[in-house]
Amino acid sequence: MLRTQVRKTAQLSFKRLQASYSAPKLLLKDINPHVIEAKYAVRGKIPTRAEELKSKIQGDLNPANFDQIIFSNIGNPQQLGQKPITFYRKVLAILQDPAILSILKNKDCPEYIKKEYPPDAIERAERMLKDIGSSVGAYSSSQGIKGFRDTVADFITKRDGFKADPNDIFLTGGASAAVNYVLQILCNGPKTGVLIPIPQYPLYTATLALNNSNAVPYYLKESEGWSLDCDELNETIKDKLAEDIDVNCIVVINPGNPTGSILSKEKMIEIVKVAKEHGLVIVSDEVYQENIYHGEFISMRKIVKELQAEHPAEYDNIQLVSLHSTSKGVSGECGQRGGYMEILGFTEELRAVFVKLCSISLCSVVTGQALVDLMCKPPSAGEASYGLDHSERTEIFNALKERSTKLWETFNQLEGIECQKPQGAMYLFPRLFLSDNVISIAKAKGLQPDEFYCLELLENTGICTVPGSGFGQFPGTWHLRTTFLPSGTEWITRWENFHKEFMDKYK
Amino acid sequence: MLRTQVRKTAQLSFKRLQASYSAPKLLLKDINPHVIEAKYAVRGKIPTRAEELKSKIQGDLNPANFDQIIFSNIGNPQQLGQKPITFYRKVLAILQDPAILSILKNKDCPEYIKKEYPPDAIERAERMLKDIGSSVGAYSSSQGIKGFRDTVADFITKRDGFKADPNDIFLTGGASAAVNYVLQILCNGPKTGVLIPIPQYPLYTATLALNNSNAVPYYLKESEGWSLDCDELNETIKDKLAEDIDVNCIVVINPGNPTGSILSKEKMIEIVKVAKEHGLVIVSDEVYQENIYHGEFISMRKIVKELQAEHPAEYDNIQLVSLHSTSKGVSGECGQRGGYMEILGFTEELRAVFVKLCSISLCSVVTGQALVDLMCKPPSAGEASYGLDHSERTEIFNALKERSTKLWETFNQLEGIECQKPQGAMYLFPRLFLSDNVISIAKAKGLQPDEFYCLELLENTGICTVPGSGFGQFPGTWHLRTTFLPSGTEWITRWENFHKEFMDKYK
Repeated sequence: MLRTQVRKTAQLSFKRLQASYSAPKLLLKDINPHVIEAKYAVRGKIPTRAEELKSKIQGDLNPANFDQIIFSNIGNPQQLGQKPITFYRKVLAILQDPAILSILKNKDCPEYIKKEYPPDAIERAERMLKDIGSSVGAYSSSQGIKGFRDTVADFITKRDGFKADPNDIFLTGGASAAVNYVLQILCNGPKTGVLIPIPQYPLYTATLALNNSNAVPYYLKESEGWSLDCDELNETIKDKLAEDIDVNCIVVINPGNPTGSILSKEKMIEIVKVAKEHGLVIVSDEVYQENIYHGEFISMRKIVKELQAEHPAEYDNIQLVSLHSTSKGVSGECGQRGGYMEILGFTEELRAVFVKLCSISLCSVVTGQALVDLMCKPPSAGEASYGLDHSERTEIFNALKERSTKLWETFNQLEGIECQKPQGAMYLFPRLFLSDNVISIAKAKGLQPDEFYCLELLENTGICTVPGSGFGQFPGTWHLRTTFLPSGTEWITRWENFHKEFMDKYK
Repeated sequence: MLRTQVRKTAQLSFKRLQASYSAPKLLLKDINPHVIEAKYAVRGKIPTRAEELKSKIQGDLNPANFDQIIFSNIGNPQQLGQKPITFYRKVLAILQDPAILSILKNKDCPEYIKKEYPPDAIERAERMLKDIGSSVGAYSSSQGIKGFRDTVADFITKRDGFKADPNDIFLTGGASAAVNYVLQILCNGPKTGVLIPIPQYPLYTATLALNNSNAVPYYLKESEGWSLDCDELNETIKDKLAEDIDVNCIVVINPGNPTGSILSKEKMIEIVKVAKEHGLVIVSDEVYQENIYHGEFISMRKIVKELQAEHPAEYDNIQLVSLHSTSKGVSGECGQRGGYMEILGFTEELRAVFVKLCSISLCSVVTGQALVDLMCKPPSAGEASYGLDHSERTEIFNALKERSTKLWETFNQLEGIECQKPQGAMYLFPRLFLSDNVISIAKAKGLQPDEFYCLELLENTGICTVPGSGFGQFPGTWHLRTTFLPSGTEWITRWENFHKEFMDKYK
């Protein structure tokens, strides 16, 4: 019997409930089913098992034949030893403790300390404190500090060659918070559909599940470097309309997560055309725009602006939300929760809804907002911090590029594994060719075949990855996502050996 | 015609849409109606008008007869000049820039700088860096850094005299994020009801609206110091069950926002009894637990634990979520987004749902998590920072207490205004006795009468408050909420004069 009924019966059988009566507890079956439905594999079963193993191998009697978990399941660079950009942290330290400014201005301040805080870091901090007005401990306006949004607008203007407006920028707690806002606004219950690339970053399907709306998959074509087919998009939208599902949005992740691919300009133009014809809001997740190893990043915004310049009347209906974050790129400041969204083409009424939604959670963390400013305007040539800053960025970038290539080469030398050339982002998403034997063993264990592979990989090597099933994949294909963030190559060798043994064992 | 229909027609009339066709834009009427419905007056119409006025009076030709907006609409102490606690900021600066540790350890470091970072601040930062493991720039576990949760558990244990478990603690982005998680889990559509005190902090009704569930009001009794009547609670729950609305949760805000009242122990026991009999989850919002000016704060958790100790079987079904925040108290670090929730009495399955929901947004900001640790364990007697820390806390506390009394006395000297004695929190919620004249003028302007008063107050004095209608109030009564955070008394005098003129003008 349902809890409501138990309680109703209890209510009706006593005129006034007896004081000693205790109602049944709220259980899993009583809560919001959409919360139960939502899945987030990046921190799901395999990472949870990895945390358990981590505690075990730290004990005196390590039962495993490895002494460290390699957390390749999540793009969390600083957890894996990537150093923060020095300039960021100097400025943030001053924002937290403006007394550092007086320390530095004291006539007795030794040179070695002054060197730690170059004049451009001081200047930046002073400007930002002025923008903030009071303290990083005060709520900012819900949309974010105006001065920081100016910096973002300048960055976008320079990047795209089309002027951006600070009033279109919202500073958010990472890109995740922005995804939440947009989908909450667009999702109008079970009749709403949102086009999601498959494979996708599972935040999208999870948020759609929470909002009781439909993730409408469009499959990326692995053999074509994870590109997409816009004719299929058109067909899918029509099919859904026939089923009375109103597809009102398309999510594009570029550079791709988990695929590591970059969309071509031609494909992007096609996507905008589809959006125009069907009245779709485009959500362009561009958090990996700095992580470009092969090819070129063009923002969806630039494509839209170019099309609007050529055909103003025709593309006037485009509504675009672009996302960026301080968690990725060479910044890797995940724990600081900085990010922004830019909204284009929405009516004033709808813009006000975005502002209201942000205001309900008051404001995003102000130091995270500050990081967005720092990311969008790093020290420039001639400024005191430029040399160090530039070399830090280059070093991080080159290390990422190098490791992506190394891991890709390893995969492609192995039997039963095939990987598209990594172009961007922080991940490889190799395809696993698993035997019928593996498939039936996994089935017997209640696991997906790729989940079984990832679990075996973890148990035998300590390498934690996420199975392709956590991102979605073309039916009958199996994959996994791994970052290439862990340093060194020893873990790669360990993986190689595991893979050979696995393929041999489960032929 | 609805957008879906327009699009459907377009789809059907072309076999393949013409390339030049542009679909209608997404408009307000096409989005999630629950987002439109959600209201958040603390940053609503009056504060928005205040921001407009602020820009105007900053210009060369100031049209107003005041030169500053007094933002009394929101508990944002540092915006109004309250200084952050020094110890917090020293530690946070080191967490952002651990190079400060080497600066201090250098043999050439002058005394004046060493004094800025006392040994206990260094020790704390070193311990916290160890707890974090890598950097504040890395995602933490979704529930929050384990070492910080240990500190919270110790704080709660000491406060209540009942042992707390760090596994029950979740570090969240302010208390707002926690409210979001809990209500998202509990809200199972339009048949779910959540008991909300009226007046209430509008985050609750806004979140319930977003989740398409019902705010079931229970009225606080103004004349009894904003206490509540538990017989009425019982009746309301039964009435709702008869209407097929399953009330599964009661929200308690103690100390009260916006009322400034404190619940008595007797009332709290009654609330727990109601929860026990009806199987309600208790959400106890205790973010103002440090702001106690008259009376005593007892946590809901302590009441529950005491009842469970006396009658273990009977109270075994209690499920409690307690909220706390670094934004209020004497910390006032709103912009840093630190907070926690403790969950008690939930099954392991449900605890896992809480963890999953947190994991979808990855983690709360790590520096905010650090602040929770600092708030829960300030320097203790004998430690180097204790003297300064203690005096800062005392000074902030005394200033708040003094200003609350001063403002309260002023209100009660005025005709047409009546205010309960402030016991806690950061607000007064005086009742306005408005003439029929005011009521009909307001109605003609499409405003609530208290909204009209607040708007007139703002336009004439620059003082920004929130009308009672934004929090809910007993039908036919009118109120406003004001903080007593602005320093000085000049603004209070200005208000006094305005009030007399207003009452005179609209007799």
